[in-house]
Amino acid sequence: MDRRSFLKGLGITAATTAFSAVQPRPLSAHSEKIVWRMATSWPKWLSILQSGAERFAKQVEIMSKGRLIIEVFAGGELVKALDVFDAVSKGEVECGHSASYYWAKRIPAAQWFTTVPFGLKVKDINTWLYSGGGMELWNEIYAPYNVIPLPGGNTGIQMGGWFNREIRSEKDYQELKMRIPGLGGKVVAKLGAEVVLLPAGDIYKALETGKINATEWIGPYHDVQMGFHKIAKYYYAPGWHEPATNFEITFNRSAFDKLPSDLKKILEVAASDLNNKVLADFEYNNAVAMLKIAKERKVQLRLFPKTVLRTLERLSAEVLEEEAAKDPMAKKVHAAFKKFKKDMNTFALLRGGDQRI
Amino acid sequence: MDRRSFLKGLGITAATTAFSAVQPRPLSAHSEKIVWRMATSWPKWLSILQSGAERFAKQVEIMSKGRLIIEVFAGGELVKALDVFDAVSKGEVECGHSASYYWAKRIPAAQWFTTVPFGLKVKDINTWLYSGGGMELWNEIYAPYNVIPLPGGNTGIQMGGWFNREIRSEKDYQELKMRIPGLGGKVVAKLGAEVVLLPAGDIYKALETGKINATEWIGPYHDVQMGFHKIAKYYYAPGWHEPATNFEITFNRSAFDKLPSDLKKILEVAASDLNNKVLADFEYNNAVAMLKIAKERKVQLRLFPKTVLRTLERLSAEVLEEEAAKDPMAKKVHAAFKKFKKDMNTFALLRGGDQRI
Repeated sequence: MDRRSFLKGLGITAATTAFSAVQPRPLSAHSEKIVWRMATSWPKWLSILQSGAERFAKQVEIMSKGRLIIEVFAGGELVKALDVFDAVSKGEVECGHSASYYWAKRIPAAQWFTTVPFGLKVKDINTWLYSGGGMELWNEIYAPYNVIPLPGGNTGIQMGGWFNREIRSEKDYQELKMRIPGLGGKVVAKLGAEVVLLPAGDIYKALETGKINATEWIGPYHDVQMGFHKIAKYYYAPGWHEPATNFEITFNRSAFDKLPSDLKKILEVAASDLNNKVLADFEYNNAVAMLKIAKERKVQLRLFPKTVLRTLERLSAEVLEEEAAKDPMAKKVHAAFKKFKKDMNTFALLRGGDQRI
Repeated sequence: MDRRSFLKGLGITAATTAFSAVQPRPLSAHSEKIVWRMATSWPKWLSILQSGAERFAKQVEIMSKGRLIIEVFAGGELVKALDVFDAVSKGEVECGHSASYYWAKRIPAAQWFTTVPFGLKVKDINTWLYSGGGMELWNEIYAPYNVIPLPGGNTGIQMGGWFNREIRSEKDYQELKMRIPGLGGKVVAKLGAEVVLLPAGDIYKALETGKINATEWIGPYHDVQMGFHKIAKYYYAPGWHEPATNFEITFNRSAFDKLPSDLKKILEVAASDLNNKVLADFEYNNAVAMLKIAKERKVQLRLFPKTVLRTLERLSAEVLEEEAAKDPMAKKVHAAFKKFKKDMNTFALLRGGDQRI
């Protein structure tokens, strides 16, 4: 995104704020106050994520005694939702809260750091990132873009989606017109589904009018906010296509490098706290919403048949190989991810806990 | 613990450091530097836990620009391993790193905040604590002691232990002389096992000489450091008695309340980071150690038979009811914990992810 389209992208309201924020901010001798902007990919009303980004900023302000202020802008307020990475890369904003798989077209390797179909679940993705070499790879991928990533929250296992057609076998996918972006979409397309891409605001109407007969979104808590439970017959689980969606806090490296070491550490540790608390918020609110949905009995809760899941798993592996073949870095990341997943699965079986207690 | 026994408990080497640390530390007008002491329940060499506490102190030092220094003392250096809570409560140290189930005799309700047999697994315990009302209960329990708790790391699902006798049915427990403290010990005692309590340093020899024929410890990484793989025939999984052992960072409330708000927040956020990273370190290192044990094939890896696990689960429920009956707060916590676990298990089944992908 160039400077012109960036400015053009600003709404009138945001422009005023943005204009003053765009000016260089000389540090006065009396105060060390630094003002940063964070662009997110979330609508302003999106709880857990947008509110998580705002809490992150608040934590940093308190910990730094007001020396580092981060102004948080929702998607479209300052930067379009899907231009966050670009804006951080170019230093148009100093930091962002988003998801790496949004940059998959430009950086195929990035998508392994959000989630991939039948990929790692949340405990394992954090283990990979923090202790298993994942962060080193992620940093390597973003380095050419002058961007530093950190994990910034996780949805846990998502839901499979809202369906107005029952899935009893692989054949039922041939009748599906489903809103499912990314790798999940590529997988169901292999089974003959028509994959429809729609912005968030248009999904409800499309499902209501039958333009689509299925859609995935996030999990029970956010799905109910979208109203899908009012117009869908079936709610399917599990979200095999997003088994643990990891978000990213990104920093423009030049801006980050200028900070004193205490503020750098404050950002790093606050990101870790964000990662922790966003997951807990998702899990808790999703559980509450799901129990409510189950109690109301208006929507029929369904699990994908095991045979269908095994087919989806096989096709997912194909899609990942195709993605990995797109560039050498994606190949390297895919290999490391596969090896890590295999080892953690072996460990899980040997210690027998996840399945048996 | 009174002042005299506290001072008596100090070793010669530690005493010098401790003496200077015990003095009141006036804040000079030129520097706001505050020096705190942290007592842990870990041996100095215990990686992940003792090193985690030290990393926590380092993070706080960097984030506070050296305004809050925490001197970390291993178990026995300043305070005996199992006197940490007392020392924090009385303000003999300002903070501690330990586990709440060590205080179970005095505070029966405390043990639900570490782990209980067939209790919550790590994702769920964090969800309960951070978002599901757990922290409110934990704070209520520690308030009379002038102590503030925060989660400070988790082992994940532990291992069942090292056995020199095979477990094929419940009857085999009658032949067991097992080192297994706490609630797990009470459960296996119901099956006729002889429960032996031994300090860490004596376990290896007891297992080697046959004084005991089984012992639990932590997980593969730390267990191998203890050398148990050299003298045991079987390594059993899962660690049903400790499905997700949560550690605690504790603060003396009076000391904490005196801090300015930035330092309070720095401690809170650093604890959250510690919780995150300790878990990742356990998971990663345990996986690596477990794969090595499996590859070497010297020890036979075993899963407890399903029927035995179901019996242990039933007896665990009995033990928990007995513990809950000990005081009203334990009863209240047990009820909240059971309700939360039931709801999360229902959610897990409905979303079908943990079992199927």
